[in-house]
Amino acid sequence: MPLLLLLPFLSFAQGSKVMDNLSLKSKILNMDRKYAIYLPPDYETSQRSYPVLYLLHGGGDDQTGWVQFGEVQNITDKAIREGHATAMIIVMPDANTGRRGYFNDIKGDWRYEDFFFEEFMPFIEKTYRTKNDKRFRAISGLSMGGGGTFMYALHRPELFSAACPLSASTGPVSLEEAKTAYRRNNPTISDEAIATYYPRHNALSLVNNMADTLKKSVRWYIDCGDDDFLYEGNSLVHIAMRKKEIPHEFRIQDGAHNWTYWRNALPTVLNFVSMSFHQF
Amino acid sequence: MPLLLLLPFLSFAQGSKVMDNLSLKSKILNMDRKYAIYLPPDYETSQRSYPVLYLLHGGGDDQTGWVQFGEVQNITDKAIREGHATAMIIVMPDANTGRRGYFNDIKGDWRYEDFFFEEFMPFIEKTYRTKNDKRFRAISGLSMGGGGTFMYALHRPELFSAACPLSASTGPVSLEEAKTAYRRNNPTISDEAIATYYPRHNALSLVNNMADTLKKSVRWYIDCGDDDFLYEGNSLVHIAMRKKEIPHEFRIQDGAHNWTYWRNALPTVLNFVSMSFHQF
Amino acid sequence: MPLLLLLPFLSFAQGSKVMDNLSLKSKILNMDRKYAIYLPPDYETSQRSYPVLYLLHGGGDDQTGWVQFGEVQNITDKAIREGHATAMIIVMPDANTGRRGYFNDIKGDWRYEDFFFEEFMPFIEKTYRTKNDKRFRAISGLSMGGGGTFMYALHRPELFSAACPLSASTGPVSLEEAKTAYRRNNPTISDEAIATYYPRHNALSLVNNMADTLKKSVRWYIDCGDDDFLYEGNSLVHIAMRKKEIPHEFRIQDGAHNWTYWRNALPTVLNFVSMSFHQF
Amino acid sequence: MPLLLLLPFLSFAQGSKVMDNLSLKSKILNMDRKYAIYLPPDYETSQRSYPVLYLLHGGGDDQTGWVQFGEVQNITDKAIREGHATAMIIVMPDANTGRRGYFNDIKGDWRYEDFFFEEFMPFIEKTYRTKNDKRFRAISGLSMGGGGTFMYALHRPELFSAACPLSASTGPVSLEEAKTAYRRNNPTISDEAIATYYPRHNALSLVNNMADTLKKSVRWYIDCGDDDFLYEGNSLVHIAMRKKEIPHEFRIQDGAHNWTYWRNALPTVLNFVSMSFHQF
Repeated sequence: MPLLLLLPFLSFAQGSKVMDNLSLKSKILNMDRKYAIYLPPDYETSQRSYPVLYLLHGGGDDQTGWVQFGEVQNITDKAIREGHATAMIIVMPDANTGRRGYFNDIKGDWRYEDFFFEEFMPFIEKTYRTKNDKRFRAISGLSMGGGGTFMYALHRPELFSAACPLSASTGPVSLEEAKTAYRRNNPTISDEAIATYYPRHNALSLVNNMADTLKKSVRWYIDCGDDDFLYEGNSLVHIAMRKKEIPHEFRIQDGAHNWTYWRNALPTVLNFVSMSFHQF
Repeated sequence: MPLLLLLPFLSFAQGSKVMDNLSLKSKILNMDRKYAIYLPPDYETSQRSYPVLYLLHGGGDDQTGWVQFGEVQNITDKAIREGHATAMIIVMPDANTGRRGYFNDIKGDWRYEDFFFEEFMPFIEKTYRTKNDKRFRAISGLSMGGGGTFMYALHRPELFSAACPLSASTGPVSLEEAKTAYRRNNPTISDEAIATYYPRHNALSLVNNMADTLKKSVRWYIDCGDDDFLYEGNSLVHIAMRKKEIPHEFRIQDGAHNWTYWRNALPTVLNFVSMSFHQF
Repeated sequence: MPLLLLLPFLSFAQGSKVMDNLSLKSKILNMDRKYAIYLPPDYETSQRSYPVLYLLHGGGDDQTGWVQFGEVQNITDKAIREGHATAMIIVMPDANTGRRGYFNDIKGDWRYEDFFFEEFMPFIEKTYRTKNDKRFRAISGLSMGGGGTFMYALHRPELFSAACPLSASTGPVSLEEAKTAYRRNNPTISDEAIATYYPRHNALSLVNNMADTLKKSVRWYIDCGDDDFLYEGNSLVHIAMRKKEIPHEFRIQDGAHNWTYWRNALPTVLNFVSMSFHQF
Repeated sequence: MPLLLLLPFLSFAQGSKVMDNLSLKSKILNMDRKYAIYLPPDYETSQRSYPVLYLLHGGGDDQTGWVQFGEVQNITDKAIREGHATAMIIVMPDANTGRRGYFNDIKGDWRYEDFFFEEFMPFIEKTYRTKNDKRFRAISGLSMGGGGTFMYALHRPELFSAACPLSASTGPVSLEEAKTAYRRNNPTISDEAIATYYPRHNALSLVNNMADTLKKSVRWYIDCGDDDFLYEGNSLVHIAMRKKEIPHEFRIQDGAHNWTYWRNALPTVLNFVSMSFHQF
């Protein structure tokens, strides 16, 4: 009889689980912040810990994007079931509420990147059974979240073993372009502020200034469709990485800046980061 | 009546045919020139005419390259049999004998490109049952032959409906690089000669100088592996075509400068040019 | 009646379970020792007992290695589901904490092998529903754990029906090599101590000294990639076993000393030990 | 009407062809010598030339062995049709008539190896449309023919791009064993004669004495079943090649010294040599 009562829970517990409306308190951003999470099929029944993929949404979307439009649950369940990916936790933070984006603001009054590394990641690693080592952390994202992927993995290579920017906004391709872009929202920003901020917030500069000792620190998988409007930045990063001899996989596939492209890319990303988690 | 009786047997007997050691006389080059040809499965038994694909080999190879290393017969037979390509004639000229390459020499004493358009193509179109219209002509090639594909289709867009450079050498990326490269073999070449020759023999200049009226004249399929040493020229051509709004398919797939990559690319090329031949 | 009602639900609810952070107290090692365990899909719902596979990790890893890198859960679930393996319990002890390795130390102050046979196996067989007969026990492992597999099954053939060393470290191949190796950590070890210890801790000597009556006691499956740095010891054990006419399966497959090789080998190991458990 | 008469020939011409009772005159051996040949499916209808695989039979067999027991035609047709092998000519000489074996006799009165290189290969390359370059020649064989494969490719690395000994007799493993073996048939052979002959007629010596400049000259694929009686020589060659850092693929698969093993190995051999013929 008690067994009977347990059944609905048990059957529930055998599959993966997605929650897309969780939140934590942030002192740095002075507000509650939302996130979504994917827990793998045996999370409830095992006592083991899991690798983590941080999966970043694009501009205009929020933490529910990969869940609703990206079919993260179906695609990851299938990849694990068929052996193309290892069981992992997937964490999808909201970077849309308040101000949009994954970076600290140039004026310093909004510090999302600090929130991410000082509050969000520690919260996740304390709340869920994650493996808290570089080799068991990966990051990926699309468009604005591809930009976040580039900058986070280039700023903090000691934290991630794999990074997979998809259709990424790589940042302004020149200082002049940066001035125009930044002053669109902040007309009074000084040249000095821009000269400091710009080299840390575009992928080309970060790649070109990368220390030799870090060239093999992160495994890269970079993908951008041939009809994507972000073709230039991604192609130039490919050229720059080849010239600097930074190992990376690069793909230009048939397609544009849309969810069909990203749902199609996600299984390869899951397989690529699993190779890191498996140590090949 | 006899024809009727023959049919079941004939269909049995049909096979495609490859000859890789044929030749024609060239006045322009003052010598015999070799070529290989693929005739589709029903060429011998039909009375129809066929579209033509000119398929160019790379440096160090000759007209037998696509036959032996490229498996052109098996791959094309399969593509036709499975409906991914239409029956076509594939012509593979030798650009290795005498001097290597598909271009007229900068000094004007070796005129391969003139031979190709004034002698070779007319000879093929007279000797075989080809359809002699722009819409039924396509060109493709690898490496040095990818360079030939770029230049021929950019020089003579009125002749080809589709062009598919694979792992292409796109030519020197600057006038300075051109001077160094050309003077390696011809140390006394003048600056004027180079200033005239260079813009016609690199893909970037030809793309950047293309007349607006010609932007949709040729369908382009451009492909170069992410580990290919020719990554820069091809990526820059992609960027330039996007900026000029020249429609083109562009792919960067997993791989390097080798026959595994090209055998893998050939079915897509055959399908792409067949779309032109079919008028979609 | 209630049971009948439960059945459709129960079959839904069944899943295997992995725990990778369990522990037991060891008097012999004077500390807590970690282990991981795989319980087959119907363990919770059935009342039957199961055969056991002891699966040993390699040097530098711990009890979580086969769980995280080896995908033991997915691979075993699939093998059972598809009928290539019988349901079994898989036990993965930690041989990394304190001192690394599966053997008693040459100086006698660290007795891991004694712990394994006198404390760990009895604990497992008391705590879980195992079948406690030689015919239902098997052992496998990789690298250092392949060495453990060789020595345990050669020392205690009365305990295991099947042994599957993968990419195994087979021990020093000569007494001289043994002296150098043992004295690296214990410079003052006497020649006598080595002369006693060495023949019991390398696979070649144990094979060459095996009593005729024991030749068919254990079913062997030995596997080592053609690019593995441990090629010599494994090839020499194959030669020695052939000369002694000790039945064994031996494989050299394409690959090196890495998890891709071992994940690929695991289904064959599961099938091989299941043949023992099934009694063919 | 004439077309009708042609039909049986035409349909014949569409498939591959095997002849197993051809012969040529040998001055060196002073007799007619038999051979078998496989001509690929389009040999009759194309005018191209083809790569060649020399495929050697084992002791007790003759040139018909690979045809009758080895199913060379069915297996090669299938490999070509499915794209795992390139079209090639396969040549199978008789090494059974008169004296058995692929070597010059130690007494110098029977010179099969000289016949092979001075008469047989030139005859084949003159009679059939073969590509007569090292890169388009490969050699394989089983048992005694695996021994022939080892010695021919080790004696004449300038002639073969790939060599695939299967279940090979690698020759006596020591000078003492050589003396016993050679004197079984030639009791009066001097020690000096053996000291000269032996190092050139066993694979281990030839591998150990290989010049550094030749280490990458031939691509090797070596395969010998775990139940084969020739396990020792092949395992020792693997160890020697690893120690000399001579690149090679090595496999020990499940099986013994029989045609089931060799029919199973042939598709991999055809694929491996095709990678040479394709230049990858």
